[in-house]
Amino acid sequence: MDRDSRRSYILSLQCPDRVGIVAAVSQFVASQGGWILESSHHSDVESGQFFMRDQILASSLPIGVEGFREKFEPLAKSFSMTWRISDTSIPKRVVLLVSKQDHCLSDLLHRWRNREMDVEIPCVISNHEDLREFVAFHKIPFHHVPVPEQDREPAFRRMAALLAEARADCVVLARYMQVLPEGLTREYAGRILNIHHSFLPSFSGARPYHAAFERGVKLIGATCHYVTAELDAGPIIDQDVMRVDHGDTVAEMMRLGRDVEKMVLARGVRYHLQDRVMIHGNKTVVFS
Amino acid sequence: MDRDSRRSYILSLQCPDRVGIVAAVSQFVASQGGWILESSHHSDVESGQFFMRDQILASSLPIGVEGFREKFEPLAKSFSMTWRISDTSIPKRVVLLVSKQDHCLSDLLHRWRNREMDVEIPCVISNHEDLREFVAFHKIPFHHVPVPEQDREPAFRRMAALLAEARADCVVLARYMQVLPEGLTREYAGRILNIHHSFLPSFSGARPYHAAFERGVKLIGATCHYVTAELDAGPIIDQDVMRVDHGDTVAEMMRLGRDVEKMVLARGVRYHLQDRVMIHGNKTVVFS
Amino acid sequence: MDRDSRRSYILSLQCPDRVGIVAAVSQFVASQGGWILESSHHSDVESGQFFMRDQILASSLPIGVEGFREKFEPLAKSFSMTWRISDTSIPKRVVLLVSKQDHCLSDLLHRWRNREMDVEIPCVISNHEDLREFVAFHKIPFHHVPVPEQDREPAFRRMAALLAEARADCVVLARYMQVLPEGLTREYAGRILNIHHSFLPSFSGARPYHAAFERGVKLIGATCHYVTAELDAGPIIDQDVMRVDHGDTVAEMMRLGRDVEKMVLARGVRYHLQDRVMIHGNKTVVFS
Amino acid sequence: MDRDSRRSYILSLQCPDRVGIVAAVSQFVASQGGWILESSHHSDVESGQFFMRDQILASSLPIGVEGFREKFEPLAKSFSMTWRISDTSIPKRVVLLVSKQDHCLSDLLHRWRNREMDVEIPCVISNHEDLREFVAFHKIPFHHVPVPEQDREPAFRRMAALLAEARADCVVLARYMQVLPEGLTREYAGRILNIHHSFLPSFSGARPYHAAFERGVKLIGATCHYVTAELDAGPIIDQDVMRVDHGDTVAEMMRLGRDVEKMVLARGVRYHLQDRVMIHGNKTVVFS
Repeated sequence: MDRDSRRSYILSLQCPDRVGIVAAVSQFVASQGGWILESSHHSDVESGQFFMRDQILASSLPIGVEGFREKFEPLAKSFSMTWRISDTSIPKRVVLLVSKQDHCLSDLLHRWRNREMDVEIPCVISNHEDLREFVAFHKIPFHHVPVPEQDREPAFRRMAALLAEARADCVVLARYMQVLPEGLTREYAGRILNIHHSFLPSFSGARPYHAAFERGVKLIGATCHYVTAELDAGPIIDQDVMRVDHGDTVAEMMRLGRDVEKMVLARGVRYHLQDRVMIHGNKTVVFS
Repeated sequence: MDRDSRRSYILSLQCPDRVGIVAAVSQFVASQGGWILESSHHSDVESGQFFMRDQILASSLPIGVEGFREKFEPLAKSFSMTWRISDTSIPKRVVLLVSKQDHCLSDLLHRWRNREMDVEIPCVISNHEDLREFVAFHKIPFHHVPVPEQDREPAFRRMAALLAEARADCVVLARYMQVLPEGLTREYAGRILNIHHSFLPSFSGARPYHAAFERGVKLIGATCHYVTAELDAGPIIDQDVMRVDHGDTVAEMMRLGRDVEKMVLARGVRYHLQDRVMIHGNKTVVFS
Repeated sequence: MDRDSRRSYILSLQCPDRVGIVAAVSQFVASQGGWILESSHHSDVESGQFFMRDQILASSLPIGVEGFREKFEPLAKSFSMTWRISDTSIPKRVVLLVSKQDHCLSDLLHRWRNREMDVEIPCVISNHEDLREFVAFHKIPFHHVPVPEQDREPAFRRMAALLAEARADCVVLARYMQVLPEGLTREYAGRILNIHHSFLPSFSGARPYHAAFERGVKLIGATCHYVTAELDAGPIIDQDVMRVDHGDTVAEMMRLGRDVEKMVLARGVRYHLQDRVMIHGNKTVVFS
Repeated sequence: MDRDSRRSYILSLQCPDRVGIVAAVSQFVASQGGWILESSHHSDVESGQFFMRDQILASSLPIGVEGFREKFEPLAKSFSMTWRISDTSIPKRVVLLVSKQDHCLSDLLHRWRNREMDVEIPCVISNHEDLREFVAFHKIPFHHVPVPEQDREPAFRRMAALLAEARADCVVLARYMQVLPEGLTREYAGRILNIHHSFLPSFSGARPYHAAFERGVKLIGATCHYVTAELDAGPIIDQDVMRVDHGDTVAEMMRLGRDVEKMVLARGVRYHLQDRVMIHGNKTVVFS
């Protein structure tokens, strides 16, 4: 599902910036015969942190991911790198969380059906029953986990168990209208993506379209971000907007907004799944 | 400078919505021989307020603006209308306020030079000397009115006098970096336009690009709005955004932002000058 | 499915422009008690043609659509109007034509499932079997009408029969990869919508993404237009584009293009179904 | 004027793709102490060509540009590179060609005045006198070179002489309404930028807004491209579009189009001046 769809290894790393990082990494990859299909770098001037992502043709690297991990480690250590390498032929395991609205779910499942999003979806979890049938059509298990307002903890324990059982690499809140408990956001830090239906930081919290309508803005937006303990405040992956005017009611804004939400979520999820996003403090580097 | 550039009269009105407003107004215009070049309506469902703008070919209306005012008044009264009519052949008088940055000024003066913006600019007022020469090239009077932080009142009294002398229909803050006193905003209510360098309501106040950079947003924006006593909170006329990424420093955001700022301000000013904007509470109806 | 979702009557008309049209129409509507929720006009300067669309609250018009038709006719005749009135409570009958690609189909059926697109879909017709199961999930009849290259006529006769049987108000080619015969385009003139996967008039005909790639354009686009006898040359309803760069292969352009295609088709279909589109020569007036 | 405004050397190269290019180049740069501020790569899958651009902090490279040229040559030769290195502290010499319309000129000169575009403009050449005064305000020499339709050759000889005298690195056609002779396009191949007022390949040639109006498109655009012997067919650097509707006359499209034209030209010129554009056949790689 990458720009180049041949089986590849994705190497992504960050470390304090200094002379010679690219040289050392490229030298190492070349020494193993590695053919680099795509390469992206970023030097953050403010923090002095360096970020890098290499997509390497798998067939050119006989040592494979495991061999790479072992042989690259000394170099990584010498540069104090945080790094990982992944194999695009091993689909990531993505659990979707939904409530009643299905536009993001429908969009993501379409991308999954036509293999644009080449992942495994071990299950969909919802606090409502509404979308069971549509999920069932895709032969994906659907778990109904109601979240009663007065006693939410057991529900989230159940959800944590389901995620563990599903061996989820990544959790996508596709318009899931519940705030996750801090424990869960910590356990899956940097791996839970949410779509918020406003152009953050404007209109965080509940009912953003109503707030946008009240303020009389001329554009509405959506934000895909990582979920952290603080509501709607996590690192932003992608955003987009759509024009509205005085004739648009809140209902009309919601309708138009759905199209932005699903586009932005799909892009954000894609970037994440391709290891194009690197978190840095409360910001992201996105090698799109 | 309208879509239809023939001399026209612009009738704009608002009143409580009810059956028959358009019929009555159109009937009246037709009875005077008036040829309607463009007509726009809006019914605000929430407030029950109705808005209308008609552009009437001047040559088709022998009674002229004055005759229209007199003859239309009884009808207007019977519908409790707030209304006005203007003649596109009488250029509006627009005073520009600037500080040191000249991108909005340069853009507006270019539109004025090539007659895209067909107004009179009786003068430019600035709290700095920097832009005197460029304004002088256009043969427009330039007034330097410094605003010392510890004693701003005399400066604003001077400015009020200059505006009065200029018989300003409209004041445009083309990146004027001073907060206007409440008295002035009241006197020119609905006639002072500002360009704020963020996508409001995000990042109101000072240094919005720094705040946007800190938050790690993926789009920056600009907002053209009417100035009210409360800073950056007036009715929004237009907004737009531009994509940024992790590689963009604050300086780079400022550079990119300048292009959005000048576009949004030019559009907002154009809408205002063509009587396309109607204020309603803290929101606008913009018949673009 | 209109901006205002209350049951309404949509009056749309065109006629030679002259003084008094709006007055006469509005007067007539008001005289019947009609409450106008939304009204749009356009005077085409070049051709001297006038266009108008009124959305009237159904409950305010006791004469109903039939009564309106009868009583309005003399007025319509006196202005030489081409006109129609429709009732938003009577869903239009829309037949979808597809081949193998399902992004537009999936998007439209989602909008139908969640009642954003409030129509009846009597059937889906395809020259391939691939999408039968997905359509069946929606409990919509699916007809497989193969179109053998060497003998296409019987297929199109069969299709014409299916459309007649379905009493189709409108036919949507949701990435249907066959050129329709002239007879069919004539019979359903102004009622067949296609989505072409380029920004027309660039790259008409087959394989537009390959052509766009070859030319090295920096934006790709999609065009929703009415189908006429001449391929890809009918009146354009809507268009949009998406940015691409040197790193995007043809496959990548196709992936990005799918998102533009489905958005543009959905918008075009919506405009058409709400009687917002009026055809005028080979161009459209779209009261969006 | 780069993202990073510190004095830097820009190394740009292309060569047949193979394993080890990045490693060899990065190793070389690092061995000289070079600090890479920004680095971009592209592997063209179709042609097997590799492209690379490195921005190196000047103060980190004691050998300087001349030393670099000498020492890097053997490596460049071994990879069959086409390459160059430039010093951002040496402003490029840009000659502007204009006719009567001044929106692009005004925009570019503003960017030059405020040092956003850090170049030398040895002169402006025009086939009309209209813009002399505005250019003179900037203290830039203005040459009036009329191009009589029946005898254009002497004019272009004069222009060639002026360009030679100006030691032009780059020529920008800022709405210059004359077709350049083939000889000139060859002499300055890859160094003459034009802004065409349509979204190419649609509406090439004269009067594109009229053609766009006739076809009834819903977006108008502009294209910045390198000038080649074949009119409007050179490698595209950047494009953008703006929405229009049925209410927009040709004059209105021209007005809206001016804003797209100046934005696209400014971006294209910026990319070119920062050595971000690499030509490859009739396409460009743009490391934006």
